[in-house]
Amino acid sequence: MRIYDIILKKRYGGELTDEEISFFVTSASNGDIEDYQITALLMAICFNGMTERETATLTMCMAHSGDTVDLSSIKGYTVDKHSTGGVGDKTTLIVAPIVAALGGKVAKMSGRGLGHTGGTVDKLESIEGFQTTLSGADFLSQVNSIGLSVIGQSGDLAPADKKLYALRNDTATVDSIPLIASSIMSKKLAAGSKGIVLDVKTGSGAFMKSVEESEALAKAMVSIGKSAGRDTVAVITNMDIPLGNAVGNSLEVIEAAEALKGNGCEDLTAVCIELASNMLTLVTGKDKDTCVSMARGAIADGSALGKFKEMVEAQGGNPEWIENTDLFPRAEHSFEIKAEYDGYIKSMDAEKIGITSLLLGAGRNKKSDVLDFSAGIILNAKTGDKVEKGGVIATLYANDSDKFADACQKFSEAVTFCDTPVKKQPLIYATVK
Amino acid sequence: MRIYDIILKKRYGGELTDEEISFFVTSASNGDIEDYQITALLMAICFNGMTERETATLTMCMAHSGDTVDLSSIKGYTVDKHSTGGVGDKTTLIVAPIVAALGGKVAKMSGRGLGHTGGTVDKLESIEGFQTTLSGADFLSQVNSIGLSVIGQSGDLAPADKKLYALRNDTATVDSIPLIASSIMSKKLAAGSKGIVLDVKTGSGAFMKSVEESEALAKAMVSIGKSAGRDTVAVITNMDIPLGNAVGNSLEVIEAAEALKGNGCEDLTAVCIELASNMLTLVTGKDKDTCVSMARGAIADGSALGKFKEMVEAQGGNPEWIENTDLFPRAEHSFEIKAEYDGYIKSMDAEKIGITSLLLGAGRNKKSDVLDFSAGIILNAKTGDKVEKGGVIATLYANDSDKFADACQKFSEAVTFCDTPVKKQPLIYATVK
Repeated sequence: MRIYDIILKKRYGGELTDEEISFFVTSASNGDIEDYQITALLMAICFNGMTERETATLTMCMAHSGDTVDLSSIKGYTVDKHSTGGVGDKTTLIVAPIVAALGGKVAKMSGRGLGHTGGTVDKLESIEGFQTTLSGADFLSQVNSIGLSVIGQSGDLAPADKKLYALRNDTATVDSIPLIASSIMSKKLAAGSKGIVLDVKTGSGAFMKSVEESEALAKAMVSIGKSAGRDTVAVITNMDIPLGNAVGNSLEVIEAAEALKGNGCEDLTAVCIELASNMLTLVTGKDKDTCVSMARGAIADGSALGKFKEMVEAQGGNPEWIENTDLFPRAEHSFEIKAEYDGYIKSMDAEKIGITSLLLGAGRNKKSDVLDFSAGIILNAKTGDKVEKGGVIATLYANDSDKFADACQKFSEAVTFCDTPVKKQPLIYATVK
Repeated sequence: MRIYDIILKKRYGGELTDEEISFFVTSASNGDIEDYQITALLMAICFNGMTERETATLTMCMAHSGDTVDLSSIKGYTVDKHSTGGVGDKTTLIVAPIVAALGGKVAKMSGRGLGHTGGTVDKLESIEGFQTTLSGADFLSQVNSIGLSVIGQSGDLAPADKKLYALRNDTATVDSIPLIASSIMSKKLAAGSKGIVLDVKTGSGAFMKSVEESEALAKAMVSIGKSAGRDTVAVITNMDIPLGNAVGNSLEVIEAAEALKGNGCEDLTAVCIELASNMLTLVTGKDKDTCVSMARGAIADGSALGKFKEMVEAQGGNPEWIENTDLFPRAEHSFEIKAEYDGYIKSMDAEKIGITSLLLGAGRNKKSDVLDFSAGIILNAKTGDKVEKGGVIATLYANDSDKFADACQKFSEAVTFCDTPVKKQPLIYATVK
């Protein structure tokens, strides 16, 4: 088998066999083919796509290119959740405890933030002492005993995907539905859970800017998950506006804790209930409405908050910080951004808000950047809200006050105003099963 | 400027600016961008094409990426000829002397054979003593004194094209009109002649299998040549059937010498007169019919044969071999292929005939292969000819008789027969100016 023939076939719109895809992934992993041949094939895939079968095969080959997590020692139904990435997206911190409180087993590996999006692992590390690196045995044991653990990615999951992703990132071949779907799902399959709920973000702060694209990606991922024998559901949610009011690591943990206490803002709570209830339908087999009630109940009765505190304690953090969020260190400096006239917020570009947070020290431009955990933004108004001249629309936080100038500039680019009321955007666009 | 943005633009069908193309070629040449980024862009070009302006700019950038030949010291009109490659294509050996005999200055760099196609430099080297490597000064001086010189490529012409071509060859991105056209024309522009006549071969033995593709390539090359200020004409000629009766290095030189003596077979002579007369229209400014008569005259009066002998002598070969071709060493072994029944030759796949010749030792599978100059094929019948059972349709020649088995097998794959007369194929399909 020759990679040349595989590239040629895909270039002319042919459907690759399982053997050809396996040869490609194996050869790409072990260096038997050149990087410049890999990118030629990836570009041809961008143009000619892949069938569901090709995409599923590519995913399985990448999932098996490295370590896979064996969750068979966990008693009960293991369920994972993945977000395609957004701004202010602290849903894992809320959803995982809700599901664990109701009997689901959440053995979750999360990522770090890069660019305009934050990462759950960073957020958790803003809790003093919280360990995101556990041994495999401790991870499994914790999930068995309290129902949840969230750690950073351990082991060498889907190294073939890592290699392809790095090449795609340098060659403008990232935005291809089969390539995105297989990249995400290869890691999810390797991570081992039986059930997978995907939060596909759509809008200005998301990778997918339109609902149509998001639906196509959701369908591709659900198809892959099912063909791999995993129960898979995707929910398409709004990321045109940041989710919730807080953007930044400890600010988001505080907002999540408040949401678990029943004080969450409307959009954040709604998205979390949607995700949690979908996970619970997989865990319990009950209908969606029942699962929505159960999820709301776990917030109302404090059991979800209790689970979050249990996890924090189990992983070395101080659960008191969750109970009393005033214990989190606050940034030394803050800066209020005020409306310049009376009217409505017409739009609030979520990606630019994410970059504002990054500029304040809450995010990373490159992997080695060090985070300022208490830096970030509290939004006092969001798209559609009425504002008055001089009213505060956001407060920026940073320990380095030199950062406010650039951040203010970026924030002002993110927000537009108008004189007339703005139509409310949907929060949940669709569910793909 | 970032190569990422250039790839992205081309991927989404954008037209690259001159600056972007120049950045690409320069960065590719000096290693500032990765090979895997080059191939991603090349694949995107295969899908989205290039405008005439983009193609011309790409060509000019590649032409100026290395040495360029300065022919300004040559008195008179310099004219070059290029064939896209075929089987039995010894036209340079006939056309260049005709044009030189009539006042054109032919300062030609030719290539070596690879795969199923032969190379003019190899053919000339089958004349004992013939030097295909001359100093620049000797090359120019010879053209000034006798009107022609054919040498191997000297200097580092269009190194950017060399790099891109090697990558295309490994990534199934060779067959793209703008990439083929710019590759060929970058070398022709660097080679310096004022006039360029392109012989675009079409059919089974050519890179372009259809007349439509060949016309598109011809138009692209003529457009590039004109935009670079060169007088450029392309002739689309038949390469569905090998050209002439001889395939193999010394066999082709002998056939060329015979053609210059007026004993050439019909197809070979017709293509040579067509090419030579097109070159002469550029050199003399006279109309085509006049140039055809002039070209025929240069054969009839022996002046073209004389020029060929002058060149052979000037480059260290023995011109007696051209006068008396019996002086060429003959292969030790020969093998006659006979028709198995009465009928007509329906088709004769030129590429497979070329490979037969290669298998006999006349060609190269890889650059380092050593040639058997006297190996090859003499075709006694070609497509459309009537054959009788037991009649010889071809004679194979080789110094290693072990090579006949494979060669016979390949030859038999190349030829099909039928019971009824076959429609004659055109020799010249079109001229693009």
